Amino acid sequence: MPNKKCTYCSQEALYSREYEGVSLCSKCFRHSIEERVGRTVTKNQMLEYDDHIAVAVSGGKDSLTLLNLLVKLEERFPRSRITAISVDEGIESYRDEAIELARKACARLDVRHVVVSYRELFGTTIDEIGKIRLDQTPCSYCGVLRRKAINKAATIAGATKIATGHNLDDEVQTVLLNMLHGDPFRILRSGPILQDPRGRFLTRIKPLCDVPEKEIVLYAYLTGTEFQSVPCPHGSEALRNDIRSFLNQLEQKHPGSKFTLQRTAERLRELLVETAPVSVLNDCEKCGDPTSNRFCEACLMLQAIAT
Amino acid sequence: MPNKKCTYCSQEALYSREYEGVSLCSKCFRHSIEERVGRTVTKNQMLEYDDHIAVAVSGGKDSLTLLNLLVKLEERFPRSRITAISVDEGIESYRDEAIELARKACARLDVRHVVVSYRELFGTTIDEIGKIRLDQTPCSYCGVLRRKAINKAATIAGATKIATGHNLDDEVQTVLLNMLHGDPFRILRSGPILQDPRGRFLTRIKPLCDVPEKEIVLYAYLTGTEFQSVPCPHGSEALRNDIRSFLNQLEQKHPGSKFTLQRTAERLRELLVETAPVSVLNDCEKCGDPTSNRFCEACLMLQAIAT
Repeated sequence: MPNKKCTYCSQEALYSREYEGVSLCSKCFRHSIEERVGRTVTKNQMLEYDDHIAVAVSGGKDSLTLLNLLVKLEERFPRSRITAISVDEGIESYRDEAIELARKACARLDVRHVVVSYRELFGTTIDEIGKIRLDQTPCSYCGVLRRKAINKAATIAGATKIATGHNLDDEVQTVLLNMLHGDPFRILRSGPILQDPRGRFLTRIKPLCDVPEKEIVLYAYLTGTEFQSVPCPHGSEALRNDIRSFLNQLEQKHPGSKFTLQRTAERLRELLVETAPVSVLNDCEKCGDPTSNRFCEACLMLQAIAT
Repeated sequence: MPNKKCTYCSQEALYSREYEGVSLCSKCFRHSIEERVGRTVTKNQMLEYDDHIAVAVSGGKDSLTLLNLLVKLEERFPRSRITAISVDEGIESYRDEAIELARKACARLDVRHVVVSYRELFGTTIDEIGKIRLDQTPCSYCGVLRRKAINKAATIAGATKIATGHNLDDEVQTVLLNMLHGDPFRILRSGPILQDPRGRFLTRIKPLCDVPEKEIVLYAYLTGTEFQSVPCPHGSEALRNDIRSFLNQLEQKHPGSKFTLQRTAERLRELLVETAPVSVLNDCEKCGDPTSNRFCEACLMLQAIAT
């Protein structure tokens, strides 16, 4: 992008934001991201002045950017608190580095850091699960177990909300993924803010949901955030990867497609929430956590692994 | 596919249907398509014993297959009638051949054939529209005008229903296309059967909506159907093409994806129809056709072309 000027301040631009038709210098780009995340938080009423936010910090670009931005946002609210939670899934020569990066970031930002492991919580690791021949990928297990681990750590820490680093790309991939799994009601389980009408699950917020993945990478680089960039050795979901590459091609040819898809999903959610049945929650007969069945998904998975 | 046997009759197979995990010989394949279309018609209550069906016949594989199958289906209902309707959009050295193929098929099947043209109905052609620099592609105009032309011809013919040759691929492409256009309510305008609760539009049915495009091509070949196979010289929608190739890649890697997506859309429709507002219909101030605005879409387009 030679000789382009920033649309806002006429400094040399370093990024061309196709979907808005603007060019941005480093400073205006960073400012735009901070402002957008602030707007997402306000628009979706994600935070209250005295929230204790449990931030899920894996050590990747999204979660460390989220932590940085939330610490900035919370400076204005002296009665609010932040606790960072990292989950050690037990992935050799991968997770240790990420947790070390999370630890350093927390030390620098003066944020309390809690690390919980699958080993201590569930008596196993993802490396061990990956060695068993199961009907689902290790990713499916990891997703359910990680959510449970974060919930548990957040509850023990006394948090009022859980914040995760899901970005725009994650969100719209999930919408298509749910549609390709045949379950439209799953769309209700995604979105910027997830509140349990029965008050039994902690509210989950996604302050980065309006920021495209590549802008988070750029923001992390520009703010000197050290993050883990190697992918998980267990790989990722095949279908999600296909959807990711389709959406990236689409966005390149038709800038703004991801935002349009997100808006459609948001409107669908508003309509579906009216008709969706609110299931009755039981206590999991094994762990006591709330579930709409006899056992929670995590306990069922752990059972399947053990047998 | 060497030496494969038909799953049903042990004859030599010529087609492997990945999404069902079966191999089929020519006869069992044809039978399976006819049976499936019959099921689609029954399941969605598409036809009554005394319907007069206006079949939109462009002269391509879908519409000629539809005509063949409906003639077969209607043999059992002596009080039913079929009229084929072809629209001449005015596309030089393209449409004439297709209409001739439609004419031949109708003569062979002893079906009444009505041809209407954009020239006589609207005073212009798609070739002429294509030469004007407009804010939308000729395809957008053609879609709206063709629908109006078919409606008009079907009403004049005294038809009770309109049948179109949309296949599974068309349907799921349209679902994603609508989502990428940001309008979830448009999903209600797709689907196997479209009935106007106010009774002002003729009911539209899509008996081929459960048949993948490539199976229609194969069925047409196996039944010796002569159809036009060259694409329209005006091209097709860029976004739809991108969606088409994504869905084809997806189906190849994950057989059954298109059906899953269609089921999701069907469930979404069931949910949305509860909350969707039924707009009040006015008479278009220009042509008198029903519209939710002052003028119908076609008249607005014709106005834009004229100025």
